[in-house]
Amino acid sequence: MKRAAVLGASGYTGRELQRLLARHPALELHVFASAREGASADVPDLESEPEIEALDWKRVEECDGVFLCTPHGTSAPLAQRCLELGKHVVDLSADFRLPDPALYRAHYAHEHPAPQLLPQAVYGLTELARERLHGARLVANPGCYPTSILLALRPLLEAGLVAPQETIVCDSKSGVSGAGKTPSARTHFGNSHENFLAYAIGNHRHQPEIRLHAGTEKLVFVPHLLPVFRGILSTIYLAPAPGVKAQTLRDCLRERYAGERFVRVFERGLPELRGVQNTNECHVAVGECGDRMVLVSVIDNLLKGASGQALQNMNLALGLEEAAGLA
Amino acid sequence: MKRAAVLGASGYTGRELQRLLARHPALELHVFASAREGASADVPDLESEPEIEALDWKRVEECDGVFLCTPHGTSAPLAQRCLELGKHVVDLSADFRLPDPALYRAHYAHEHPAPQLLPQAVYGLTELARERLHGARLVANPGCYPTSILLALRPLLEAGLVAPQETIVCDSKSGVSGAGKTPSARTHFGNSHENFLAYAIGNHRHQPEIRLHAGTEKLVFVPHLLPVFRGILSTIYLAPAPGVKAQTLRDCLRERYAGERFVRVFERGLPELRGVQNTNECHVAVGECGDRMVLVSVIDNLLKGASGQALQNMNLALGLEEAAGLA
Amino acid sequence: MKRAAVLGASGYTGRELQRLLARHPALELHVFASAREGASADVPDLESEPEIEALDWKRVEECDGVFLCTPHGTSAPLAQRCLELGKHVVDLSADFRLPDPALYRAHYAHEHPAPQLLPQAVYGLTELARERLHGARLVANPGCYPTSILLALRPLLEAGLVAPQETIVCDSKSGVSGAGKTPSARTHFGNSHENFLAYAIGNHRHQPEIRLHAGTEKLVFVPHLLPVFRGILSTIYLAPAPGVKAQTLRDCLRERYAGERFVRVFERGLPELRGVQNTNECHVAVGECGDRMVLVSVIDNLLKGASGQALQNMNLALGLEEAAGLA
Amino acid sequence: MKRAAVLGASGYTGRELQRLLARHPALELHVFASAREGASADVPDLESEPEIEALDWKRVEECDGVFLCTPHGTSAPLAQRCLELGKHVVDLSADFRLPDPALYRAHYAHEHPAPQLLPQAVYGLTELARERLHGARLVANPGCYPTSILLALRPLLEAGLVAPQETIVCDSKSGVSGAGKTPSARTHFGNSHENFLAYAIGNHRHQPEIRLHAGTEKLVFVPHLLPVFRGILSTIYLAPAPGVKAQTLRDCLRERYAGERFVRVFERGLPELRGVQNTNECHVAVGECGDRMVLVSVIDNLLKGASGQALQNMNLALGLEEAAGLA
Repeated sequence: MKRAAVLGASGYTGRELQRLLARHPALELHVFASAREGASADVPDLESEPEIEALDWKRVEECDGVFLCTPHGTSAPLAQRCLELGKHVVDLSADFRLPDPALYRAHYAHEHPAPQLLPQAVYGLTELARERLHGARLVANPGCYPTSILLALRPLLEAGLVAPQETIVCDSKSGVSGAGKTPSARTHFGNSHENFLAYAIGNHRHQPEIRLHAGTEKLVFVPHLLPVFRGILSTIYLAPAPGVKAQTLRDCLRERYAGERFVRVFERGLPELRGVQNTNECHVAVGECGDRMVLVSVIDNLLKGASGQALQNMNLALGLEEAAGLA
Repeated sequence: MKRAAVLGASGYTGRELQRLLARHPALELHVFASAREGASADVPDLESEPEIEALDWKRVEECDGVFLCTPHGTSAPLAQRCLELGKHVVDLSADFRLPDPALYRAHYAHEHPAPQLLPQAVYGLTELARERLHGARLVANPGCYPTSILLALRPLLEAGLVAPQETIVCDSKSGVSGAGKTPSARTHFGNSHENFLAYAIGNHRHQPEIRLHAGTEKLVFVPHLLPVFRGILSTIYLAPAPGVKAQTLRDCLRERYAGERFVRVFERGLPELRGVQNTNECHVAVGECGDRMVLVSVIDNLLKGASGQALQNMNLALGLEEAAGLA
Repeated sequence: MKRAAVLGASGYTGRELQRLLARHPALELHVFASAREGASADVPDLESEPEIEALDWKRVEECDGVFLCTPHGTSAPLAQRCLELGKHVVDLSADFRLPDPALYRAHYAHEHPAPQLLPQAVYGLTELARERLHGARLVANPGCYPTSILLALRPLLEAGLVAPQETIVCDSKSGVSGAGKTPSARTHFGNSHENFLAYAIGNHRHQPEIRLHAGTEKLVFVPHLLPVFRGILSTIYLAPAPGVKAQTLRDCLRERYAGERFVRVFERGLPELRGVQNTNECHVAVGECGDRMVLVSVIDNLLKGASGQALQNMNLALGLEEAAGLA
Repeated sequence: MKRAAVLGASGYTGRELQRLLARHPALELHVFASAREGASADVPDLESEPEIEALDWKRVEECDGVFLCTPHGTSAPLAQRCLELGKHVVDLSADFRLPDPALYRAHYAHEHPAPQLLPQAVYGLTELARERLHGARLVANPGCYPTSILLALRPLLEAGLVAPQETIVCDSKSGVSGAGKTPSARTHFGNSHENFLAYAIGNHRHQPEIRLHAGTEKLVFVPHLLPVFRGILSTIYLAPAPGVKAQTLRDCLRERYAGERFVRVFERGLPELRGVQNTNECHVAVGECGDRMVLVSVIDNLLKGASGQALQNMNLALGLEEAAGLA
């Protein structure tokens, strides 16, 4: 039985990891701690369990892998220390997603705390990075919106099925858990329930991440907030390369993800949030509308968009069965 | 055109009053202010309007009536000053609902700030206190749960239709707006959506208010939180006096509320929140279950349970048409 | 006092019209009827009022204007008879929105029942068709999705601010009331609550309507279903003409809608469903994302998207004040 | 590996059983069929899987246990045939919950189809009937509301802690899945969302079941419909026997359920729906209000209130580990 630590345990992603690890046959949750030595949970919480302990590095040393559920800027120094201790690290923050420290500084408003680690980080979009994830020491877990978009888009771009000079439009919609657990006016029931809105037009931090890992700047991304707890649906509009039909795209995705446990390509019909909530799956369908191909990609933002994919990555990093704890 | 001031404007009840007064033919909103001189809104808010001004007593003096949407303890000193200025005051807090300062201290954990005002306060359950409300100088607007319960129960108790020695059970359910606008773990969408719970068993402050104004200590009240924005439904179980049938109760309520614009007694069927939301109405029905009579009473907690009833009371206090602004 | 008839009253749009007319100072609801002579409401309904009467043409003759809340195919023959009776007709169906009967047949799967009426129909996008609406005899009330998109897009297209050869992407999201009142698996609470989905990709009937009235085929439209009761938010991605900035678009919209009671152009910030629900308003904002301009347009699908705009149009048709009953 | 059949598979309880059995280490779903030979699913369904087969008795014979998810009246004849085939039967309908066929006829409006089977049926409130469930041939799975109420109440009644002559009040609130999957006006999103209501006052079929299995007629039960998908919360008001305190009740429940995997008695705090949704657990707390003790009991209506408890019972009937598939 290997051991995992979760640091920054007080948010939704920490709670999801705790739930997943409770059923993991080969990896047990050994440390469930806040992010700072001596501090306990700093987010007001109604739940009595699991208990969140103060960070004790001696206990972290007893682990094999560490999940960092800490905010950007906080993760990087913790990752550095964990790596020095010889641990495998999966970071759920943005700290290692952008390999260029200048790009990081431009979008995260501060210098990267540990730029020397950037070259070794693996961007953990599991199905598309598997070879590099086996035994990886430092995994940058992708953002939730990027996961939903890149899983659908990357294979098509790599196969040259997308017209290169046409702007790809990504219109994404996420449940409120994506906004985090800390009470705010935005997440007050009175402002979320029976409501819907767009936000961060042109300046969401996931946009550079999506463009970088899609390999094109000809892409725009607008997020929206849904009055549900969990789930992301991304509607992606692209111009196909000459001669490419919807079925071409479907076939490409189906082949790319043949045998994949967690990505399901629809031959007909369209996916819904309900079909993926509380699972680690991504469901994708291809439609056609005028001169555009339309991809619809859905994931559970807390699972395939965060903790589920993090566990998938940690399983590979620790040499465990990839779907362990996630079936 | 008479003028109203709303002090403590930043919460839900202030916003509701502003909406109602926008359509009032004879009373205009002249002052929409925070509760403290020099301060503006202190609750994080997403809405840009209406603007909340700092409290300026010179502007308050220009008004005829003042609505206090301030918390208990804060209202009483403000009421005192407003009365000294000759204004008519409707207080939406609990400060004047309990005539006995000892009872107030027992339940609100501090001494009453202005006990000398208690004797003149009128408990503003409009349909049952109308005579005292005409021209009233100080109105204690009832709590939301008490309004839903007392409107249904009082006439039956007063008519001797309820067995005096049997405990009356009041099981109430309220939408989240009753918990206020300030972000908290409790009102975070993630904790309210797709959830339901009981709270404050045995120690909710509305319980002494309900017992006092019902005129009996043989009454228990348990509140619950619903995953809706607005509305309260109270299910009241009582033992009927000998010979009393459900129709007796229905007839009593129908007669008591004959011609009342805002109280509707169902002859058949049961009321729902949807039927009263965004109205100042109270809908009541009587059912029978075993040896108990069951009353179901629904109101919009922000309207008949607060701002709507407050306006009803202010209209009477200022000698305006009672339903003005509320139709 | 003029008189209105609502035919096909049993759905949501009929109910909204009944609510609006209850407060209209110059137009009263005289007939509230089902669509077929001799039949009463045919949709299972939980509400006891208002009563829906069987269609009686003698009573319709007593009216000045008729609202047709009937389905496509059903409205056209009714419109014909109403016009013969000299009434002013506002049709909420699609029957008169597409002037070309061949286009109608292509998308509505049957021959147009009254093609001779098509030339006189006015497409009732009120703010953009006002001159033709004064005294109009036959108004084709636009679809809900088209209203949300065209109000934002038309002025920009007409001003030449949009690059003509780039595909405009319209990603729209609507509350469940848009799916109608008839129970179905789709609208069962269990399938709508905590869920979100795209549908009708490439084949929604509103797409030809939007393209026609926008005046361009270079436009794609994908609708989605939101777990709210009312509201539509459309996110529109367009390539600006050379030299055009976001502020250029904002200025164009602000000028086009200067003084308009029901269209509000945001100078900053983004609109939300909550800001327009239960009002006849359309709120629009302009953002910038990469090489695209992004419009966000929100309406209440039952009001500005249907019954509210219908009443606006009827007011003009009957020579009444345009905002009467809608303030 | 033992084999199970689910007959009447098209509703929510069938779907829950399919999900649970997918992870059961010792019982596999072998037959997932509609209720009538030759018919497939008769309820409009959006889900493509699992496939529902027509009923084929030869395949049922290959099973060890049969779950009947059929309506009352339909289950009894199916149970009879299954028993003749030597199967173990767990019936989720009401057909075997009331041992007296006269009581059944009084509340279910038709004669019992197989009264000769009534004496052998075991009422499957698992934690309170375990000895009779081992190897049972015919289990009457309790109703959802009765489960939530009886688990909390029975131990207290049996221990003589409840005043015998005082009416026990049970105020229950259930999510919409309790109303079934068939579209209806009641379950239309437009009628359930942002709404709450009481129903079936005095005449809900679960009331005689609750009274019978509680062993007292001095009990009233009123159900309500919550705008959530799953969960039941019952608030139970009872008069304690002389000298009995809240802690006495807590201790009684804690002892009765000591070591129970699926019943959790709160020492402090109050349970919420969120704490039991998607689990087979029942959470109970005891509070005090005036002269009443207040029990709050929450379950997931589709799991502990139906399919979860059914599986618990089937595990015992087939001699499998009781919590298998449910952990």
